[in-house]
Amino acid sequence: MTRTKENSIYRDGLEKCPANYAPLTPIDFLYRSAAVYPDRPAVIDGNRTVTWSQLLGRCKQLASALIQRGCGQEQTVSIIAPNSLAIYEAHFAVPMAGAVLNTINTRLDATTLTYIFEHAETGVLLVDQSLTGVVHEALCGLSDSRRSEMLLVEIDAGLSPDPSRPPLEALDYESLLHEGNREAELPQVEDEWDAISLNYTSGTTGNPKGVVYHHRGAYLNALSNLVGWQMPHHAVYLWTLPMFHCNGWCFPWSLAAIAGTSVCLRTIDAPSIYNAIADQQVTHFCGAPIIMNMLVNANASEKRAFEHSVEMMTAAAPPPASILKAMAKEGFRVTHVYGLTETYGPAVICSWKPEWNALDDAEQASRNSRQGVRYHALAGLDVMDTETMTPVVHNAEEMGETLFRGNIVMKGYLKDPIASEKAFAGGWFHSGDLGVIEPDGYLKLKDRSKDIIISGGENISSIEVEDCLYKHPAVLEAAVVAQPDEYWGETPCAFVGLKATAEVTEQEIIDFCRENLAHFKCPKSVVFGELPKTSTGKIQKFKLREIVLGTRD
Amino acid sequence: MTRTKENSIYRDGLEKCPANYAPLTPIDFLYRSAAVYPDRPAVIDGNRTVTWSQLLGRCKQLASALIQRGCGQEQTVSIIAPNSLAIYEAHFAVPMAGAVLNTINTRLDATTLTYIFEHAETGVLLVDQSLTGVVHEALCGLSDSRRSEMLLVEIDAGLSPDPSRPPLEALDYESLLHEGNREAELPQVEDEWDAISLNYTSGTTGNPKGVVYHHRGAYLNALSNLVGWQMPHHAVYLWTLPMFHCNGWCFPWSLAAIAGTSVCLRTIDAPSIYNAIADQQVTHFCGAPIIMNMLVNANASEKRAFEHSVEMMTAAAPPPASILKAMAKEGFRVTHVYGLTETYGPAVICSWKPEWNALDDAEQASRNSRQGVRYHALAGLDVMDTETMTPVVHNAEEMGETLFRGNIVMKGYLKDPIASEKAFAGGWFHSGDLGVIEPDGYLKLKDRSKDIIISGGENISSIEVEDCLYKHPAVLEAAVVAQPDEYWGETPCAFVGLKATAEVTEQEIIDFCRENLAHFKCPKSVVFGELPKTSTGKIQKFKLREIVLGTRD
Repeated sequence: MTRTKENSIYRDGLEKCPANYAPLTPIDFLYRSAAVYPDRPAVIDGNRTVTWSQLLGRCKQLASALIQRGCGQEQTVSIIAPNSLAIYEAHFAVPMAGAVLNTINTRLDATTLTYIFEHAETGVLLVDQSLTGVVHEALCGLSDSRRSEMLLVEIDAGLSPDPSRPPLEALDYESLLHEGNREAELPQVEDEWDAISLNYTSGTTGNPKGVVYHHRGAYLNALSNLVGWQMPHHAVYLWTLPMFHCNGWCFPWSLAAIAGTSVCLRTIDAPSIYNAIADQQVTHFCGAPIIMNMLVNANASEKRAFEHSVEMMTAAAPPPASILKAMAKEGFRVTHVYGLTETYGPAVICSWKPEWNALDDAEQASRNSRQGVRYHALAGLDVMDTETMTPVVHNAEEMGETLFRGNIVMKGYLKDPIASEKAFAGGWFHSGDLGVIEPDGYLKLKDRSKDIIISGGENISSIEVEDCLYKHPAVLEAAVVAQPDEYWGETPCAFVGLKATAEVTEQEIIDFCRENLAHFKCPKSVVFGELPKTSTGKIQKFKLREIVLGTRD
Repeated sequence: MTRTKENSIYRDGLEKCPANYAPLTPIDFLYRSAAVYPDRPAVIDGNRTVTWSQLLGRCKQLASALIQRGCGQEQTVSIIAPNSLAIYEAHFAVPMAGAVLNTINTRLDATTLTYIFEHAETGVLLVDQSLTGVVHEALCGLSDSRRSEMLLVEIDAGLSPDPSRPPLEALDYESLLHEGNREAELPQVEDEWDAISLNYTSGTTGNPKGVVYHHRGAYLNALSNLVGWQMPHHAVYLWTLPMFHCNGWCFPWSLAAIAGTSVCLRTIDAPSIYNAIADQQVTHFCGAPIIMNMLVNANASEKRAFEHSVEMMTAAAPPPASILKAMAKEGFRVTHVYGLTETYGPAVICSWKPEWNALDDAEQASRNSRQGVRYHALAGLDVMDTETMTPVVHNAEEMGETLFRGNIVMKGYLKDPIASEKAFAGGWFHSGDLGVIEPDGYLKLKDRSKDIIISGGENISSIEVEDCLYKHPAVLEAAVVAQPDEYWGETPCAFVGLKATAEVTEQEIIDFCRENLAHFKCPKSVVFGELPKTSTGKIQKFKLREIVLGTRD
């Protein structure tokens, strides 16, 4: 008898059952590390160290307390806090209660916070003591019904009283936690597709969108971080990257899988980072390129010597050659990744090839400046003409939109099915980032769709012009936007921040560009000064555009 | 409005779609490595090296050829071959065709092979040239209908003609492969629960049982191998472990995830292994404890010096202290794992703790002799009284049956729902292995249920007596079984293989045991001689039992 899929011998009697199927969830990593490495440090927050077994106990207690307080399945628990024990705990305790974790950018204004609390239908709000001021203001703007349903919890940070931080009428975090019973039966994750977290994108226009993650994606990207970055067991990880940013790129969960240690850092500056590396033997950290600037430009008294090699993962902008070289000299190895809030943080990695070690510094930097290849957990990464959904040729020239597909693409935007459908058109997530594929298959971003400059009908990648500007020895930071031009339509306008003691003229910058770029790509004007940035260190081009257009106050 | 799971905001508009969901399958790792590391060596088989891009091309071709030959979805493709390019390719090409891979133990007899071909309904059979003799015999026993439906394929191994290896009336493997079109559209994995492979257990009684794996489990255990063993990118892996054994413990798929190199080895002996390490820079290998004996007992002319440290993963029996010490001296680090065919190979690992490095050799070996803790992909590991399903106390004393639960437990036994149901009773997979949990949570096996010796009402663990025997300097290998005793019911009978030049009497062995064990646990008699083993190196206790009972020829 010929078998087909319909009468296959591999169907009957081979179904899922509790013995052979368990939903994927990163909560499981906490249980494993608590059982296997109970006494190893899980979190170091200031003078406080919590072991894996203590952490599990505290998370069980907090989950049980949340449930007792009526925080039900799939309700939103928001937290606004710097990197600290509480926000690390929230990554486990909140989903252990069956609720959804909403970490909030600590630099948002009150109006945006009010919007988020209403949109997310926040049932419990955990607030670090340092942030009661803006939260107080945000709560004043809330509807009465939302405010009355919300349980407000303040996390004591040991700060002295300050009028800018009015105490909230809130429950104390440790008191809430101690209401719980660590022996209580907690709900099991029934479906790995259930929401685990909600992250609002820091959109530059309109209201922020709520990006929903599920347990499956969080589990898989946590493992992808480990396999992609080759993280060893018991890595000591310094929290320079905010945990509110795409759930710390899923690293809270990665660290639980390898029983690593999270070293929390409230103040992000060069001395704090060097001290943590030298004193706590930090082996890994992540952060925006600005962190690299901090580290290599720190003066001698701010630096500390360390014997071991330290791995850094960076995103947001390709690391310039000079910075990479300086980082290597200090003992840092830099891995370049790329992703969006919609892709659980890093979903693309510039996988380093052993043969690149033989290249000179500039060549190495040029290889490492590409965004790279898909993460293990990402099923597909491509650059396409989205009109026809045709992939571009791998020639480093043909530009298209960067698309993602797979288990580490978000469930969708909360309460916004139209935006979700648009984002997922044609079976791919549309990033809005323009890129090319180089002949070796590595993605290189060229621009955000809206950042491209069209001059005389030719596309100019603002990133390409910025790359050139960064090569000038006087330039600390640079951003290029379109400037309306009667003849050309648009021309590039450069905004440049200079290094501390550097002096250079507009013409010198333009001349430098003309030596290194096709002339039509060169800025027609240069504006000097510090660049406006978001709370996560991204340069805010929309503000520069407003300056150019004269629409900014 | 209070939200519940039913009217949760996290449901509507957040469904699965092609952009945000992809079934887990280890096939994906091959596509990734071929794209990212096209020119790195994937497989080295004798003088032949195949790169990742070549491997993908060949696998696509083979998959397409299988489909063209009518090998449909979920049909069984059996392969009987030593570790070689073809069997590595089969791990990808067969599931890429939508078929199920059945790797067969190369040491099975013709009668068992016939049984397997009939039971698995083998549609395509790939046979290495070295094994045509036994396969020819097995085919003679097949029903006409099965034989007529089966496509027979011979893999040329470059061997010279030999009457013991009659050529089969078969298609040549390379010819079949070249029938395929590497550009052909292949079926996508639609459901990660679909079968990927079929492994027959080498049961000691009755017919072998067909253990079915799915894509999800294969993917997850492949990653678990990497995270648990901390395997780096581009590891060079020596195939001492047969790939027919639980799909090589899922390592063919692990290696694809890290673009590692598989070095195939047809002859497993000390010189071949040392040569591969020194010449090919092998970094990792797996194998039964017998491989360790081989390596440390090799004479100087068989050994080769190497600079790097080599990781070995071993299972089946806890490595004795003397062997571990000798292995470390040679430059090998040994990781002890445990699992069954039903658990995708390794599912439990004796996770090494940094603090153990400070212990003396005996203490280190004692720590490493435990089976350990659950793999990342295993949801649950416990030891229970299976009458009441009560977990044992973690006191290293209370014995129970070792149970497994999670995504790396098989789909079930093929065409044997009753056996599957029994194996999964109470929501756990029942291993039949008796064990205890030590106070630090590490599992230590005590015995197979059927290997326990009951003397005067007291349980004696045959493993405990064997551990003692292995400590005697003259003992190379040892196994203990129950011997009927009029007074005690049963007493231990020891079978001992001695080292090459060792001499020792039965009484000396018994005295040695009495010095180191409770007297009731000591063997009453000792039989000297080489021990019978299965093709995978497991000592066949059922044969020793037959000798004791006088039922053996």
